[in-house]
Amino acid sequence: MPTTTWNRHHVLSLADFTAAEYDTVLQTAASFQEVLSRRTKKVPTLQGHVVANLFFEPSTRTRSSFELAAKRLSADILNFAAATSSMTKGETILDTAKTYLAMGTDIMVIRHKEAGVPNAIAAEMDRLGVRVSVLNAGDGQHEHPSQALLDLFTICTLIDPAHPRLELLKGKKIAIVGDILHSRVARSNIWSLTASGAQVHLAAPPTLLPKLFAQYIFEESEGAQDLTKVQKSENTNQEFIISSSPSSPSSPSSPTSHSQNRQLFLHWHLEPALQDADFVMTLRLQKERMTAHLLPSLREYHHMFGITRTKLQLCKPNVKVLHPGPVNRGVEISSELMDDPEFSLIQSQVTSGVAVRMALLYLLGSGKTSAIQN
Amino acid sequence: MPTTTWNRHHVLSLADFTAAEYDTVLQTAASFQEVLSRRTKKVPTLQGHVVANLFFEPSTRTRSSFELAAKRLSADILNFAAATSSMTKGETILDTAKTYLAMGTDIMVIRHKEAGVPNAIAAEMDRLGVRVSVLNAGDGQHEHPSQALLDLFTICTLIDPAHPRLELLKGKKIAIVGDILHSRVARSNIWSLTASGAQVHLAAPPTLLPKLFAQYIFEESEGAQDLTKVQKSENTNQEFIISSSPSSPSSPSSPTSHSQNRQLFLHWHLEPALQDADFVMTLRLQKERMTAHLLPSLREYHHMFGITRTKLQLCKPNVKVLHPGPVNRGVEISSELMDDPEFSLIQSQVTSGVAVRMALLYLLGSGKTSAIQN
Amino acid sequence: MPTTTWNRHHVLSLADFTAAEYDTVLQTAASFQEVLSRRTKKVPTLQGHVVANLFFEPSTRTRSSFELAAKRLSADILNFAAATSSMTKGETILDTAKTYLAMGTDIMVIRHKEAGVPNAIAAEMDRLGVRVSVLNAGDGQHEHPSQALLDLFTICTLIDPAHPRLELLKGKKIAIVGDILHSRVARSNIWSLTASGAQVHLAAPPTLLPKLFAQYIFEESEGAQDLTKVQKSENTNQEFIISSSPSSPSSPSSPTSHSQNRQLFLHWHLEPALQDADFVMTLRLQKERMTAHLLPSLREYHHMFGITRTKLQLCKPNVKVLHPGPVNRGVEISSELMDDPEFSLIQSQVTSGVAVRMALLYLLGSGKTSAIQN
Repeated sequence: MPTTTWNRHHVLSLADFTAAEYDTVLQTAASFQEVLSRRTKKVPTLQGHVVANLFFEPSTRTRSSFELAAKRLSADILNFAAATSSMTKGETILDTAKTYLAMGTDIMVIRHKEAGVPNAIAAEMDRLGVRVSVLNAGDGQHEHPSQALLDLFTICTLIDPAHPRLELLKGKKIAIVGDILHSRVARSNIWSLTASGAQVHLAAPPTLLPKLFAQYIFEESEGAQDLTKVQKSENTNQEFIISSSPSSPSSPSSPTSHSQNRQLFLHWHLEPALQDADFVMTLRLQKERMTAHLLPSLREYHHMFGITRTKLQLCKPNVKVLHPGPVNRGVEISSELMDDPEFSLIQSQVTSGVAVRMALLYLLGSGKTSAIQN
Repeated sequence: MPTTTWNRHHVLSLADFTAAEYDTVLQTAASFQEVLSRRTKKVPTLQGHVVANLFFEPSTRTRSSFELAAKRLSADILNFAAATSSMTKGETILDTAKTYLAMGTDIMVIRHKEAGVPNAIAAEMDRLGVRVSVLNAGDGQHEHPSQALLDLFTICTLIDPAHPRLELLKGKKIAIVGDILHSRVARSNIWSLTASGAQVHLAAPPTLLPKLFAQYIFEESEGAQDLTKVQKSENTNQEFIISSSPSSPSSPSSPTSHSQNRQLFLHWHLEPALQDADFVMTLRLQKERMTAHLLPSLREYHHMFGITRTKLQLCKPNVKVLHPGPVNRGVEISSELMDDPEFSLIQSQVTSGVAVRMALLYLLGSGKTSAIQN
Repeated sequence: MPTTTWNRHHVLSLADFTAAEYDTVLQTAASFQEVLSRRTKKVPTLQGHVVANLFFEPSTRTRSSFELAAKRLSADILNFAAATSSMTKGETILDTAKTYLAMGTDIMVIRHKEAGVPNAIAAEMDRLGVRVSVLNAGDGQHEHPSQALLDLFTICTLIDPAHPRLELLKGKKIAIVGDILHSRVARSNIWSLTASGAQVHLAAPPTLLPKLFAQYIFEESEGAQDLTKVQKSENTNQEFIISSSPSSPSSPSSPTSHSQNRQLFLHWHLEPALQDADFVMTLRLQKERMTAHLLPSLREYHHMFGITRTKLQLCKPNVKVLHPGPVNRGVEISSELMDDPEFSLIQSQVTSGVAVRMALLYLLGSGKTSAIQN
């Protein structure tokens, strides 16, 4: 088990994650991945601890992943599902959280359809001076940090299974394709992948790219104007460099300075994003976007932004494809490609999810425990 | 662990609870409260036992509390939620209970919207000669014994954390405010609190006071008539003394005779109930009472019966406020008061809930186990 | 624990179960029945293993039974309920199953309203070369093998509690009464009971008998024509012998040849099926059959095919009645008969269910574990 110091009390966003923190999560997850390959895939690390899954927005996949991660750490789990709950009638979300606090919860895993709810609960816990940790399992269109961390872990372990670390991605080209505008997965991935020194290329129809980014978009059809801009992020001191072409990467930097120059490229077409890409991350398309007239048709969307074996020929030969799931087969990705183990990392992502969530629960709970035993 | 004898096989109502039984629950819960302060909050007491949560009426708060209590005793839990269940189609509730019996359930925790269901199931189990225990987790407008016991524990441990016991409440003035008529919480609390020798003052609008009590109400505005009455309870041999004023308390009595003279006072206004009160228990207001024309408006209700810091000035200086939750902020209690740790015991109640429910499960299961180990 | 070899990787159907396999399940279940009579009803056999309950069709009874069986083997359980799930939106059932595979599931217990889903998932797992086992917990109108195995275990342990085995049923007359057409329970029971050498008599209104069988029906009112036919099953090499009367049983055969001659008799009336029966299995009547005009009325159905004490007088004196539950009291079976322990095995079936499901989970998981310990 790595002995890296971990001082973070909540995991709410990846915006201020340091390289050391990324590496700690990756290395801890690698240790748990090893545990999961044993015959008895369970450690007593969090025995007697209570993990409350407070899913105000329904989820089966993410909740099951956290539930299994907690069980494999021997924690006790309380599942709260707002849909079938008689709580929250009249009381606030903070009241609900405080009720679980008072029952003795150690870690709260929170999903909510509104951005900022996990932050608000974490702030209240801190105000109360209690040791409860909050883990954001997806809040509105804000962030989904555990998903981005499992994506990162999936990619890094592919490159170096024994020692996954952030710097492995330096100089890699990673395309993120699809509904960037509404995707908390994209938002968290942009933080982690740009922090690694990778070149991150977003590709989406104009209606599904954040307005904030739209003014900086590089449209190759308009000629190669020098559109390089530097934009100050609102939340942090880090800078986004939005370059006009892949030909102006950031200069080589030491591992500790990797987060200084973040490279983000935006495209209204798929092809320049796929060109020589090492990894292609596709995003789930919420079908309700159709009814909001943000998309012409699923067929046309697939024609323009759906990933197929043919389109992958633009990428590096050993390119891999990711998707957070559940996949709309034949929309974001062709059915045959999804099932092709040569290209698809989708199953690995699910497996990584359990290891990464074990790592997060372990790191958040480790202030109260000693170490992983078996 | 206290060595007090416990012969009760079911916990259905507090109507016939003896002082010794109250004290056994309080002392056992205190032991578990200590367990909960350890790093590993788990004991193997009920390992291999099955606790079935049969919640025919939805509940998150109470179910989670019982579920956590059972997990901390290392029991296996089966959750049954009628809302999402394909059972009970055609079969009776007794059939459902017998199915869980046949699966090997040791303790059934039952909530139902109809009064008497837990009693009926317990009677059937006894008729069958099986050892299954039934614990009433709220039945209609009848009783909610574990809630009243956790209220009692919360109050008693505030007075003497190490040795909570019934006699600590002797002579205390406790106000119960709100929808008494429809409240199973109030009904159970009236049994336990009057058994302790406390003076229990109910305050509610006339439409929300039980008709049974209404004829005995002491209305100070009508002058100090001698309205003292003695009323025989239908279910037990115990008597309710409904006195016209706090100036006629029962005479001092030995610990074993405390339940002989129960003092219950009823008010149509809040102020006389609050006057010099040591504790104020507020009840949840079901908003559907509004549509039934039992209430003018939530705002007016709050004006007349809502608890605020200002109104608390009528009480003893160190008065504490309780509420079973979930709270309608700004209705039963002002939002600022609810969050004020100087006055509010609401969080303590939730914490006490786990310890008291561990105690109840332990006592009901103890015929089959030896003692608390760690 | 029996040392019988068990090579089956999935339990999808009883159509190709061998006598040795039936006996292994029965004997293993008997061992677990003994475990369940201990004070601590838990064994560490499947510790660290993950059992996923994938119930695409709602079920409380069967899911609880599998859940308890898994808990008593110390497995970790993931519950998936399609009704409240956000999964399967856009993805296929196979995708959902592969997600649980990727999370590390060892055994999938699957219920679906469409016949063949468990088979399709098992085929996909085999194609992928993974070691996951699939257990059919009821698929459409196809099969429900664990129910038929628990029925078999219930009957066999009644005859010889210490050594339940298939040959105990040789020559017994067993009536299956009710909605044969739509019943996966009936279908699985027909495989196991005819394999045992018992004479199986189906009785149902013509509208609720499978069309496949209808042409061979023995209608005593039409005179005793020689309607004996031999019909080749579509799925296996086994033969159904549909005889015109119980007076032509198959000749005595050695234990290993018991499955050669399967005896199945069909009746449009109840009486010939009950005549001298040793066991009567009643089936649940789905009330929606009424609206499909397959039945006149529940009252008339009960009059013609409902089992009562009076009708049981046609049977052997010590006849027993089974029902998979939940029972429509007063429809398939009279209320008083259901509660009569002299005749009803319904509670025993539920208890057997946990032991039999422990046996199945144990046998499917035993490739990865050593043996039952305590």
